[in-house]
Amino acid sequence: MEIPSKLLEQAVNEISTLPGVGKRSALRYALHLLGSTDADFAAFVGALTDLKSKSHFCSECHCISDTPVCHICSSEKRNHNIVCVVENIQDVMAIENTQQYLGVYHVLGGVISPLDGIGINDLTINSLIERVSKGDIEEVILALPTTMEGDTTNIYIDRQLKAFPSVKVTTIARGIAIGDNLEYADEVTLGRSIVNRIPFEKA
Amino acid sequence: MEIPSKLLEQAVNEISTLPGVGKRSALRYALHLLGSTDADFAAFVGALTDLKSKSHFCSECHCISDTPVCHICSSEKRNHNIVCVVENIQDVMAIENTQQYLGVYHVLGGVISPLDGIGINDLTINSLIERVSKGDIEEVILALPTTMEGDTTNIYIDRQLKAFPSVKVTTIARGIAIGDNLEYADEVTLGRSIVNRIPFEKA
Repeated sequence: MEIPSKLLEQAVNEISTLPGVGKRSALRYALHLLGSTDADFAAFVGALTDLKSKSHFCSECHCISDTPVCHICSSEKRNHNIVCVVENIQDVMAIENTQQYLGVYHVLGGVISPLDGIGINDLTINSLIERVSKGDIEEVILALPTTMEGDTTNIYIDRQLKAFPSVKVTTIARGIAIGDNLEYADEVTLGRSIVNRIPFEKA
Repeated sequence: MEIPSKLLEQAVNEISTLPGVGKRSALRYALHLLGSTDADFAAFVGALTDLKSKSHFCSECHCISDTPVCHICSSEKRNHNIVCVVENIQDVMAIENTQQYLGVYHVLGGVISPLDGIGINDLTINSLIERVSKGDIEEVILALPTTMEGDTTNIYIDRQLKAFPSVKVTTIARGIAIGDNLEYADEVTLGRSIVNRIPFEKA
């Protein structure tokens, strides 16, 4: 695809750095922006710049927030003795959407991944340990992705939390998704769902 | 989907004004930008701002260009007696990709669409007539979309060009796409492809 203008090409290259955006979509977006009114364009760029320059992250849970402490961490309705550890902001939103959780969160900002150069100090693990060391937290729920990186991070956090024997460390249930057929489930998930079976009345 | 920050929500709303981008993708893009380095973010916004503020449009064909007259209109290798009228820049790029056309272009910037409030003066039709009136153009190829709006625009341009009887007005061939089965073609296209059949040796 030969682009007839260097400026357009540059914009297309930048837009296609967004996750899952190819050159063709990037071109469509660039030409849309080029054709938009000056006011619309200023609003677009302004919103992105504001997001980047003015966004706060909650000093407690590290989730994005418009205030120094986010609305979840500052809410009296939430149980501040239970902390759910998640990889990123999307995961907080996903769990909030279920309306099944009333504790607070801790956003790691990623998972340990040596191949991607993400180590312990790039994440908010130390801040989590500090939160736990204050003594109010009774349970830490590990809700990280079921990948090798997620598992590694789980194990690391669990080891650090061994220093606080009164804190219960749990992880979200893994198993067959509601509505799924057993025959299509992968072996590992199905195997674990049998090993970790639960009393019927709790399901 | 409840977004935990007004700034993030604003950015998501703006990003989802891009064509074909939903809220979920917009959130993904916004969080990607939020997590990018300051330098990467500056490059991203800079490329968009440059595109918007510094882009030129060729004074001849109205295609995007880094120079006052684009590289196609200023090329001596192109046949300046044939003008291909297209809706937008993407169409120029699509035709250029075929490497089958050696004339020049005229980018209308849209098609006549009263429902969308796009009239003759929003397009570069008058500029096309002016180009033709200079007397060098022998053929105008109408390559607009086969929609009601495209057809309306074709008819309007054709009428305006009646004032220049020496100018041949043509349109790109409509018919069954190469590699397509007849049984899956729509009736209108198949019907026209029979009415407008061509000598076998030309196909």
